[in-house]
Amino acid sequence: MTTSTARNAFYAQSGGVTAVINASACGLLETARKYRKHIAKVYAGRDGILGALTEDLIDTSKETSAAIAALRYTPGGAFGSARYKLSGIDKNRAEYERLIEVFRAHDIGYFFYNGGNDSMDTAQKVSEIGTQLGFPITCIGIPKTVDNDLPITDCCPGFGSAAKYIAVSTREAALDVASMARTSTKVFVLEVMGRHAGWLAAASGLARDPDARSGGAVAPHIILFPEVTFDRARFLDKVQKTVNRHGFCVIVVSEGVRDAQGKFLAEAGTKDAFGHAQLGGVGPVVAAMTQEAFGYKFHWAVADYLQRAARHIASKVDVEQAYAVGKAAVEFAVKGKNAVMPVIVRKSSKPYRWSIGEAPLAAVANREKKLPANYISADGFGITAACRNYLVPLIQGEDYPPYLKGVPAYGSLKGVGVPRRLKKKFTM
Amino acid sequence: MTTSTARNAFYAQSGGVTAVINASACGLLETARKYRKHIAKVYAGRDGILGALTEDLIDTSKETSAAIAALRYTPGGAFGSARYKLSGIDKNRAEYERLIEVFRAHDIGYFFYNGGNDSMDTAQKVSEIGTQLGFPITCIGIPKTVDNDLPITDCCPGFGSAAKYIAVSTREAALDVASMARTSTKVFVLEVMGRHAGWLAAASGLARDPDARSGGAVAPHIILFPEVTFDRARFLDKVQKTVNRHGFCVIVVSEGVRDAQGKFLAEAGTKDAFGHAQLGGVGPVVAAMTQEAFGYKFHWAVADYLQRAARHIASKVDVEQAYAVGKAAVEFAVKGKNAVMPVIVRKSSKPYRWSIGEAPLAAVANREKKLPANYISADGFGITAACRNYLVPLIQGEDYPPYLKGVPAYGSLKGVGVPRRLKKKFTM
Repeated sequence: MTTSTARNAFYAQSGGVTAVINASACGLLETARKYRKHIAKVYAGRDGILGALTEDLIDTSKETSAAIAALRYTPGGAFGSARYKLSGIDKNRAEYERLIEVFRAHDIGYFFYNGGNDSMDTAQKVSEIGTQLGFPITCIGIPKTVDNDLPITDCCPGFGSAAKYIAVSTREAALDVASMARTSTKVFVLEVMGRHAGWLAAASGLARDPDARSGGAVAPHIILFPEVTFDRARFLDKVQKTVNRHGFCVIVVSEGVRDAQGKFLAEAGTKDAFGHAQLGGVGPVVAAMTQEAFGYKFHWAVADYLQRAARHIASKVDVEQAYAVGKAAVEFAVKGKNAVMPVIVRKSSKPYRWSIGEAPLAAVANREKKLPANYISADGFGITAACRNYLVPLIQGEDYPPYLKGVPAYGSLKGVGVPRRLKKKFTM
Repeated sequence: MTTSTARNAFYAQSGGVTAVINASACGLLETARKYRKHIAKVYAGRDGILGALTEDLIDTSKETSAAIAALRYTPGGAFGSARYKLSGIDKNRAEYERLIEVFRAHDIGYFFYNGGNDSMDTAQKVSEIGTQLGFPITCIGIPKTVDNDLPITDCCPGFGSAAKYIAVSTREAALDVASMARTSTKVFVLEVMGRHAGWLAAASGLARDPDARSGGAVAPHIILFPEVTFDRARFLDKVQKTVNRHGFCVIVVSEGVRDAQGKFLAEAGTKDAFGHAQLGGVGPVVAAMTQEAFGYKFHWAVADYLQRAARHIASKVDVEQAYAVGKAAVEFAVKGKNAVMPVIVRKSSKPYRWSIGEAPLAAVANREKKLPANYISADGFGITAACRNYLVPLIQGEDYPPYLKGVPAYGSLKGVGVPRRLKKKFTM
């Protein structure tokens, strides 16, 4: 089973899952199985870091090669993920000590943490406290987020597939609206994710054919970014001009759009029958504004989890990069690197070429990359050519899952638990 | 150009478009080009029947074979569709006379109307009034609707693709929710179309693997049909039991769900900041109920037009049937049939075999086919094996469009107008 020098590894998924986070797990597990001299077994945390804290570990060695391979095309988090942020070491040293205790009990020498900037902060701290407690552990971050807001890396695995879903959906809905606008819906609003950064909203701009002059391919006509303060008058003016010119208006709005007072538009509008705020999203709020101002018939869609789970229309580039960062994490670890995260390095946009680089976790932790100003058009309602050049490579290629009875035949795992070795239980 | 006996044809798309209505246009146009002795040119109505009323005709003979072929994989209505119902002949004889006037001016001997049950009523009346006015015209209906509510035909082209989109999306979102439920969203609601009939909501049931006992593949846990009166207490009880057992609950709700007073739930809930009703859909209303009752964190998605425009994940069977009814319409016409509609006849479910039959327009017009009672499970929250057997064949196979720069390379037409011959203008 294990050689004298091999130690076990711990892998956990963290935060909002994506269509390809399991592809990173696949890359990590398949690669780890090639380095048995270094890594004996990979234990995955059930429900992410909670699995470590509660000593609820999944023994991935019990999974077949076929089951591991299926992770490449299965969305969601196969081991469970968690929204659970460890606070600062000073405030909550007990949690970090508990992690080390569990790692020590299971001879875990490698900690792989697959998440966003919060998670990179956690991985960095685990590395520090391990050293302090005399239990050095190799900590490698693996980037993941549909929000594309991690610094240093050119893009984040998970983003490209959500971006492709949004671009495809916007183009399709626009064709629908364009064909019926004369007697039916004139304003269509699609709400997308992105509370702080407008990367996903920007991706809708790829639905637009820059050469088109009319019809569905001119949409979206308006993108509302969280980076641009919402100005109701300017927005309504643009909607009216668009309807007058094209007969309809397609709007993509980021959930994080705020007004001049810094208030989320999503919170500004809807109240339910009981007076509770924040029932609806920003999509219906924006759509209703146009009806109120001009009487336009409107429709709206809220993609919500569909956009980050849509493995059926994943970007091939994204799947490859997700797999590659999982693979690189193991390779970094066995080379003795520590407290680093593999990143995507763009070597060329046309043709698109990329490679894997590395960044210190400390440089990634808790930092957010917003949409650069030169990616947003002068009027604030669209994307620039520079943005398009950046985004287009990331949604290239289709990587279709297998189907059974008309629906994707996504994989599932046995999820066999590792016997507990500690008597003390952890309570959150 | 035209032979002595050949006459022109008029084709129009009507009502809400689908992912495959253009596949029917493709079948019709490609087949008509093979029957030049009967059909000289096919003129399409710009924006549906409005194009006939306003003498705004598109000369499809100006389109290349490649452009016509691309219709097979292009969603929306390539010629424009309209929500415009001609009223009864007694009430509005002028409109019917105008149609005949335009048809006479352009030597149109064939009327192909691609729509739902309203449209079949119109086609039937055009046939009658043509005879009355001494201008006999061959009227053939072509079935189309995502709602699947046409009688006689086993299914409606357009439905299978929307059904597949819903089944795929539900499965994907369920995997997402299942993986994070421990610390995040416990209730996820997807709102789908279907104001009167629950066919699309039922299709979400195909996301569920009947053999699964846990994880994302047990979802959806609850389907809310327009055919079943909404009972808040029973619904909340089922949600709570589901969360207690599985840790999360996925709900698919039809926009047409009503309470015991016959009131749409969508109208019961949201008001905007100005007190206007009906801002939101039923999805957020249902989701908020569960939070109010149990404090569950919820998320909701509204698929809206995305579900009927999602050509990227169209059902292969649906595309083939859409093409086949367009083709059959021409074949019926040249055989001298009149006032009929091609229908899908199911010959066997396992294996799935179907053929084209025919139905008199009068038998289809203005009739709605709801979900049969034996397709809804005893508790009213799911589908039966009989329903599954009916639905599964309709979402079989994938028929992917070509892609360019990461998005589907959907077709577009030149849309060259036919010179007007009438002096009189039509005003709505």
